[in-house]
Amino acid sequence: MDIGGTKTEAVALDAEGRIESSVTVPTVRGADAVVATSETVVAALAERTGRRIGEFVSVGVGIPGQVDREGGLVSHAVNLGVTSLALGPALAERTGLPVSIDNDVTAAALGAAHLMGLTGTMAYLNLGTGLAAGIVVDGRPWRGARGVAGEIGHLPVDPLGRPCPCGQRGCLETVASGSALRSSWPAGGDHPGRRILAAIAEGDDEARAAFEHLVAGAAACVRLLALSVDPETVVVGGGLRLLGAPLEDGLRSKLDGWAAGSPFLAALGLSERVRMLAADSPAAAVGAAFAGER
Amino acid sequence: MDIGGTKTEAVALDAEGRIESSVTVPTVRGADAVVATSETVVAALAERTGRRIGEFVSVGVGIPGQVDREGGLVSHAVNLGVTSLALGPALAERTGLPVSIDNDVTAAALGAAHLMGLTGTMAYLNLGTGLAAGIVVDGRPWRGARGVAGEIGHLPVDPLGRPCPCGQRGCLETVASGSALRSSWPAGGDHPGRRILAAIAEGDDEARAAFEHLVAGAAACVRLLALSVDPETVVVGGGLRLLGAPLEDGLRSKLDGWAAGSPFLAALGLSERVRMLAADSPAAAVGAAFAGER
Ligand SMILES: [Zn+2]
Ligand SMILES: [Zn+2]
Repeated sequence: MDIGGTKTEAVALDAEGRIESSVTVPTVRGADAVVATSETVVAALAERTGRRIGEFVSVGVGIPGQVDREGGLVSHAVNLGVTSLALGPALAERTGLPVSIDNDVTAAALGAAHLMGLTGTMAYLNLGTGLAAGIVVDGRPWRGARGVAGEIGHLPVDPLGRPCPCGQRGCLETVASGSALRSSWPAGGDHPGRRILAAIAEGDDEARAAFEHLVAGAAACVRLLALSVDPETVVVGGGLRLLGAPLEDGLRSKLDGWAAGSPFLAALGLSERVRMLAADSPAAAVGAAFAGER
Repeated sequence: MDIGGTKTEAVALDAEGRIESSVTVPTVRGADAVVATSETVVAALAERTGRRIGEFVSVGVGIPGQVDREGGLVSHAVNLGVTSLALGPALAERTGLPVSIDNDVTAAALGAAHLMGLTGTMAYLNLGTGLAAGIVVDGRPWRGARGVAGEIGHLPVDPLGRPCPCGQRGCLETVASGSALRSSWPAGGDHPGRRILAAIAEGDDEARAAFEHLVAGAAACVRLLALSVDPETVVVGGGLRLLGAPLEDGLRSKLDGWAAGSPFLAALGLSERVRMLAADSPAAAVGAAFAGER
């Protein structure tokens, strides 16, 4: 399951990793509510697949915030109203199943690689409220020596950029994320991603400038991933994928423009490496099921 | 062997990867001279180890420029005066041995990991005329999907930075490299790295500013590698390692300063991941011997 800020999505996978059934419920804030909801969706999947809960092999959970996989602990999941929660042990006790907890971006990366049939090395670029990438190598999460591989959101790219909550300035997250969009287009309110395309269509120049800034930032993320990890494919997902084709087209034309000005970049084939995660893809829920065993 | 702009260094390794013998000769510019020199050092190592050339199992060559490993081709090795050279086939014909050619930074990364006993994931940050990193995972080169993993030199970090020969602006290479040092401290002449510490000791403020700029750029490379590839260790090498302890101390104090201003960075332990390649380490020559088989 993928426990997000607004909804919790869960899938039952068969032994071949195919989706047998799925369920989506609203997420309710707070530690107790998160535990209750996670138990509810497991029970719902059992009912829908005509199985007892005990017939499931395991439960995998993708969740935002800081995750201690060993202990099944989640902390600082601000969007869920969770300060600290031993979700793994709590859900294991209630279901009688082995439970693994993982970062939602890692889960989405694994799920995207699986659902899109990507082998070798891929990166999943999550344009959400924040910004981070998940890396998958041959179907396994590449976590890095200290668990921060792909945490590109806090790499500064502009000494004169905006201050970032991390204590630095001009981080990629201050350019390419939902929170960046709120800063650069305050008129867009709390969910600027839902309104910006309409505003641009109506001729709002500030909205257009904010969108182009966001696209340039996302393109910089693709370039950065290519020149560090060098994945064959960069899959773009996260809440801002609701920007759909305009985001994809903008990203490609930005990358193509850079390539036109730099033979070095042209040789990297950046634009052709980009793929968008389908708007309704249950990637994080699917990937969460694999995360524990990989 | 490692064919560098000023010298060619070669080592004979035994079956356990220990150095049996070594030889260093000046590099002479031009394709024919490079082939002749490479043959000379193989013969010299045979003589010094009391063996016939045919007793060596293979020859590995690390060389700057663009390398086509498959064909054993080197091109655009500007420092060697080589436009295009089929070095692999030429040396194989002259020695009767299998020859593999690899990028000098990849070779140095492999050699550094071997000589320093680094397991898991390590990055080798090469501060040379240019800037690039080599990545090694469990003793094998991590080349990436398109062979550009670790090519961080051409990642822009300052929209107002210097134009870079790659066609972009403010690349890391325009800050943290020998060529960057020449630009930021023109008084240092063609080899500013050899003179800058003395100039600083004499109270030259421009030299000090250029040095600090270089150190900040190198620190940015360490941060970038940590938040993308996340290696356990970043080994600093390349021509600028002649800056020795002042470079190492400067790098650590820059990283520590950043950590003091950012709990996020503090948690990454950047300073403790940095190690310097010994000034006289034959890392690239040693790594070249492994590159072909890995
Ligand atoms: Zn930041
Ligand atoms: Zn460049």
